[in-house]
Amino acid sequence: MTRIRPILTALLLGLTAVGHAETRATGDLGLVIERADGGLKMIETSGNTVLSSIEGLGDLSHASAVFSRDERFAYIFGRDGGLTKVDMLQGKIAKRIVQSGNSIGGAISQDGRLVAVSNYEPGGVRIFDADTLESVADLPADYGDGKLSKVVGLVDAPGNRFVYSLWDAGEIRIADMSDLANPKVRKFENIGKQPYDALITPDGRYYIAGLFGEDGLALLDLWQPDQGVRRILPDYGRNDEKMPVYKMPHLEGWAMAGDRAFVPAVGRNQVLIVNSNDWSEAGRLEVSGQPVFVMARPDGRQVWINFAFPNNDRIEVFDTLTLERITTLHPGKGVLHMEFEPRGEEVWVSVRDDDQLQIYDTATLKQVKTMPARKPSGIFLTHRAHKIGL
Amino acid sequence: MTRIRPILTALLLGLTAVGHAETRATGDLGLVIERADGGLKMIETSGNTVLSSIEGLGDLSHASAVFSRDERFAYIFGRDGGLTKVDMLQGKIAKRIVQSGNSIGGAISQDGRLVAVSNYEPGGVRIFDADTLESVADLPADYGDGKLSKVVGLVDAPGNRFVYSLWDAGEIRIADMSDLANPKVRKFENIGKQPYDALITPDGRYYIAGLFGEDGLALLDLWQPDQGVRRILPDYGRNDEKMPVYKMPHLEGWAMAGDRAFVPAVGRNQVLIVNSNDWSEAGRLEVSGQPVFVMARPDGRQVWINFAFPNNDRIEVFDTLTLERITTLHPGKGVLHMEFEPRGEEVWVSVRDDDQLQIYDTATLKQVKTMPARKPSGIFLTHRAHKIGL
Repeated sequence: MTRIRPILTALLLGLTAVGHAETRATGDLGLVIERADGGLKMIETSGNTVLSSIEGLGDLSHASAVFSRDERFAYIFGRDGGLTKVDMLQGKIAKRIVQSGNSIGGAISQDGRLVAVSNYEPGGVRIFDADTLESVADLPADYGDGKLSKVVGLVDAPGNRFVYSLWDAGEIRIADMSDLANPKVRKFENIGKQPYDALITPDGRYYIAGLFGEDGLALLDLWQPDQGVRRILPDYGRNDEKMPVYKMPHLEGWAMAGDRAFVPAVGRNQVLIVNSNDWSEAGRLEVSGQPVFVMARPDGRQVWINFAFPNNDRIEVFDTLTLERITTLHPGKGVLHMEFEPRGEEVWVSVRDDDQLQIYDTATLKQVKTMPARKPSGIFLTHRAHKIGL
Repeated sequence: MTRIRPILTALLLGLTAVGHAETRATGDLGLVIERADGGLKMIETSGNTVLSSIEGLGDLSHASAVFSRDERFAYIFGRDGGLTKVDMLQGKIAKRIVQSGNSIGGAISQDGRLVAVSNYEPGGVRIFDADTLESVADLPADYGDGKLSKVVGLVDAPGNRFVYSLWDAGEIRIADMSDLANPKVRKFENIGKQPYDALITPDGRYYIAGLFGEDGLALLDLWQPDQGVRRILPDYGRNDEKMPVYKMPHLEGWAMAGDRAFVPAVGRNQVLIVNSNDWSEAGRLEVSGQPVFVMARPDGRQVWINFAFPNNDRIEVFDTLTLERITTLHPGKGVLHMEFEPRGEEVWVSVRDDDQLQIYDTATLKQVKTMPARKPSGIFLTHRAHKIGL
């Protein structure tokens, strides 16, 4: 057998090398950010299990993820400027760069070839080749007399465009990357003070920035950019009651249900209801804390709301037809994020202080499973690959 | 080496058995029906290539496909009653049954566990375990004095429900499969004569059946089923001009763009525009043939329209904002189907009589690639797995 062993070893090594990547489909995969440890849990939503852990992603506070169009690779944007490409079939980091000192979010282009990162410090948007993570373009957030602005609210839009807002400059910009050698940046100035986050509607048509320094919100119709940015919900402002803001809400989570959008109010125990036909206010939901994420079940019939400290131990679920509260769930301390499965039958919840992932059936509103995770925060499922603006 | 060979052979066989399934992601895969040969082409949309051919699926005229929630398996519904489960990682048929003599379409439940098939002859809906294809339930389409109706317009809806229409009975039915041992079927009678196909809106709320035997369309609000079925577009009828109908349009292709739905008219060279806020008619597009599929680009900015014989050599593209025709494409004879890539940057077109698949860039409206396929008809991409009603 002595002569056989090296051959066997070689074959087995070959098998390992070839077979290291899992043979499995990727449509039901997801990643959970484990912020305290700089790690990820890879999950799957068909059997509701944790598949593996991935380590070494740096500072993952406020981290987010986007996915390659084949749903194999994830791009994780870390707070330390780290951009990490994860191979979900191999369950490991494929490539990692640190692209700046302080990043806040990212996006992937419509064609899947470009990954964009928005930065606080130095302010700007950097664009990378999705395959190699090599730098492709640098879009500085310069304004006024050579100043640099923090960039927030970066999203992808149809036509291989990225749209983002400049906190310090009060601007919205559209970067058209359809000709890579010649990116075209269009600027919209004086959109309002301190845009703090933004969303794009699921069809990619309307870009809406929340304003921290003024009343109302700034809306840009990307189908008709020549009309410029206009103010909507002028009667809504965070300043009139001078409430302390415990945590800035996330606008990416704005929920669309039919022709109604549900928007977390800043610093108030309210969710704004907006008529998306004319962007007028259509009412408010009174909730029991400052809302952080307001997420619509994919069919739009329910919105799920989590809250800033000290009310971050609960989730309120509202019926979008009756506008009544259906239930209040108490998953535990530190409910940070919720992610619906693609067709909405279940929702995953991260409960940071209890080191838990929890899954709820959205029809019965009952918890169906709990799994351990280390200080989980953001949950991202691969079907986002197929969505505009996610 | 004589003693080594059997070991090597065993190992290599093992490797083949293990390694036969492709290690690749499934988010960018798709299948094209090759109707004349009872086969499929497996395609991928990142590099725009044909990966393989799969044979032996029986009569695939009027065939359609749905996908498992992990995007690994496809379920193909053939006209001969065949239900074939295809493993896209292995590139082969995983299981095949012939479940009736004449089927017309199918759907997969929200939780991915059930596959439903609607049948012409004998009329009814049969429900199978998505894993094993074993029969789970039989929902006869009985009406009146023990008669059986053809079933059309079968779709999935949130809450593990299936919704379908009875051509002969003039009924819409909702089958709630959330308790498998006790399916609940709710009947809505007298909805209009000869419902011929139906659609469900992308949020899963409204089920709308086209009527062949009467004016208007039948609408059921699945959020408020107690309100019953009501007639919409009462001024639209196919009968008033007695035009011959060359091919029944497909309603599954109804396009939603913002609060406008674009609907192929039966027997007329028109596309109806419907206001989805109140389901009133909001106008018509004049087109150059009887429309078959009216498909919205995923961002809703364009609708692409193909036509019945003798105008099945062209595609008309309209701008949904200006309602103007942007272009008329001439792919060739027998343009049967169009499928947009998930975020809409490209669209695949099957051109039957030229044995071609063609891909168009939806921004430039130019053809970017052509590939051979044998009499291609339906094109189905895996991202449908994540959609309600597809």
